[in-house]
Amino acid sequence: MLLLRLRTDLGADVTVEVPSPDKLLEVQAYYGARGWTSGEVPSGGYQFPYDNEVDFNWALIGARKFTNSEGEEMIMHRGHAYRRRELEAVDSRKLKLPAAIKYSRGAKNTDPPHVREKADAEFEYVSLAMFRGGKRQERYAKKSAPNAQIQPNAAD
Amino acid sequence: MLLLRLRTDLGADVTVEVPSPDKLLEVQAYYGARGWTSGEVPSGGYQFPYDNEVDFNWALIGARKFTNSEGEEMIMHRGHAYRRRELEAVDSRKLKLPAAIKYSRGAKNTDPPHVREKADAEFEYVSLAMFRGGKRQERYAKKSAPNAQIQPNAAD
Amino acid sequence: MLLLRLRTDLGADVTVEVPSPDKLLEVQAYYGARGWTSGEVPSGGYQFPYDNEVDFNWALIGARKFTNSEGEEMIMHRGHAYRRRELEAVDSRKLKLPAAIKYSRGAKNTDPPHVREKADAEFEYVSLAMFRGGKRQERYAKKSAPNAQIQPNAAD
Amino acid sequence: MLLLRLRTDLGADVTVEVPSPDKLLEVQAYYGARGWTSGEVPSGGYQFPYDNEVDFNWALIGARKFTNSEGEEMIMHRGHAYRRRELEAVDSRKLKLPAAIKYSRGAKNTDPPHVREKADAEFEYVSLAMFRGGKRQERYAKKSAPNAQIQPNAAD
Amino acid sequence: MLLLRLRTDLGADVTVEVPSPDKLLEVQAYYGARGWTSGEVPSGGYQFPYDNEVDFNWALIGARKFTNSEGEEMIMHRGHAYRRRELEAVDSRKLKLPAAIKYSRGAKNTDPPHVREKADAEFEYVSLAMFRGGKRQERYAKKSAPNAQIQPNAAD
Repeated sequence: MLLLRLRTDLGADVTVEVPSPDKLLEVQAYYGARGWTSGEVPSGGYQFPYDNEVDFNWALIGARKFTNSEGEEMIMHRGHAYRRRELEAVDSRKLKLPAAIKYSRGAKNTDPPHVREKADAEFEYVSLAMFRGGKRQERYAKKSAPNAQIQPNAAD
Repeated sequence: MLLLRLRTDLGADVTVEVPSPDKLLEVQAYYGARGWTSGEVPSGGYQFPYDNEVDFNWALIGARKFTNSEGEEMIMHRGHAYRRRELEAVDSRKLKLPAAIKYSRGAKNTDPPHVREKADAEFEYVSLAMFRGGKRQERYAKKSAPNAQIQPNAAD
Repeated sequence: MLLLRLRTDLGADVTVEVPSPDKLLEVQAYYGARGWTSGEVPSGGYQFPYDNEVDFNWALIGARKFTNSEGEEMIMHRGHAYRRRELEAVDSRKLKLPAAIKYSRGAKNTDPPHVREKADAEFEYVSLAMFRGGKRQERYAKKSAPNAQIQPNAAD
Repeated sequence: MLLLRLRTDLGADVTVEVPSPDKLLEVQAYYGARGWTSGEVPSGGYQFPYDNEVDFNWALIGARKFTNSEGEEMIMHRGHAYRRRELEAVDSRKLKLPAAIKYSRGAKNTDPPHVREKADAEFEYVSLAMFRGGKRQERYAKKSAPNAQIQPNAAD
Repeated sequence: MLLLRLRTDLGADVTVEVPSPDKLLEVQAYYGARGWTSGEVPSGGYQFPYDNEVDFNWALIGARKFTNSEGEEMIMHRGHAYRRRELEAVDSRKLKLPAAIKYSRGAKNTDPPHVREKADAEFEYVSLAMFRGGKRQERYAKKSAPNAQIQPNAAD
């Protein structure tokens, strides 16, 4: 048995049981669908393979897609809205980077320094997730986590 | 079974058992009525639907209403008094925001930087809760949490 | 059953069991008498009713009375000595405050910023407890916590 | 039984059971092979004996070897790539230090101050591990941790 | 039963069981002999009675004696070496302090501000332990903790 520590949508500090390591992502997605998260967003944002972006299961990190008032698809995570940006591949003599898709937002004055990244000008932003390179992992896809069937503590 | 970690009214670090996820809010309200809280206030304050303000169950977040010496209704939360403010809807070309009700207080010099928000002038404030937009959720209402009947550990 | 997390007199991070919520203060006083504390001192110090000062059970917060080399009664808490100060009632047009008794000490350069409060001049101090207003609560009094009889884990 | 608290590759806060203290390194290596880590990198980096570098089991600290696009062997740890550097022995009148091998990377603007070390010029770096002096310990070697055979919770 | 949370010599976050409060120091010394520590060094360092210095059981705080390359006895604690210093008694009109023995080291640029103490000039240092005044406590002495006989979890 594992214990998974979560922050609920109301900010409460809750610990739940996970029967075994291979059920961990399912349980995270189950609670993540309610906006519950575990741990902190890594600095620079979560790193996922590029080919997982198309059907990424946002519930895994407690996030969800929504459409804003201007009809744009955004990602909501812990009360912040993140915008999708496509980054072109870089292929100069100094730096080689494959194309990427990044979800980020402008920094607010209540954001701590270690999550703020500098952009070109004075602008600072905060990253939620970066999809770049790597090899697609099925465990991150929506279809691979049929969390509707999972009912933790159903017998309680 | 879940574990809920709380800070008591005396600041002690306590963990209690919750039989199942659907009982979580009831247990939070039960201990919240004594001023116990779980986790931290999210930066920018808790976000709730506008239509929940009228009968919001403040015990859910360990807060309570009180009347100050000038007869004004305030909210007490972890030793700080918050004042109710009505924010008008914004409908300019740049920004569209529905009307909101915000509970906030002036910042103190012992408040950490990440909770301080800037107002018009030099003034800084700290938000406890913002009621704006969204759809009313019955689980946040006072009547839906008959926590007088709940007696955690009654059999202990 | 509850879990209470404590910091021992040697700074160790220890968790003990508490049979039920109504035994919590007794268990805190039992370990507090050894200098063990739970959680952090709230910023601005613990807030207690004025009428609890006369027979306050300092063990509840892991503190104890002692007499310093000049015969003065002080409070020892986590290695720091705090002095008793009587604050007169304030009754001006701008501010009305009842009389209070405050336990505080001068700030040290190793104190973090969020516990330092500014006094009149350049002087900064740190508050442990403030007794002001409110209504006496018997559960904070020495006599109400006969912790000599309590023997947690006696059967282990 | 011990409890081991881990941060998963997705940043989740998970606690697992370890049957006894002598199994701890095996369990750390088992989960470390998936990129799960426990605790923080000590400031200045992990300290290991010089003679452990040749066959160090990087899974013990949740790290792994990889070859970058220029064919160089690097160490990946929590999303950061660290480069191997050989430090010559110092034998002056003021300072005597044996030869060492250090794994470090350039500091990023999202790194907190306490992990940044100053180099000769303006350059700041972050250390993951230092192999210097001491006596080889078999428990840190790859062959001593046959973690393929370990299957925690296999019976769950 | 108590739970004791420890940081291992490799920085891992581990929790062990302690049968009862009176066994706590024994268990701390048992794991401390491997360099495992619990909690943080109090700011200003651990405070012990002067008469405990002669046979202090350094394992209680996860430290150990060693002899450096110049034949000097030092204390090793979490990878830092501390030097023994004798402080003479102070007996002026302003300040009266008994003689003391202090274990401290020069501050490094990776030390957080709250552990740095200012010395006469620009020099900053970090204290591990101060032995001053008080009354000898046998529980801190080496002989009182025959931890070789203790075998936690021996039956697991």
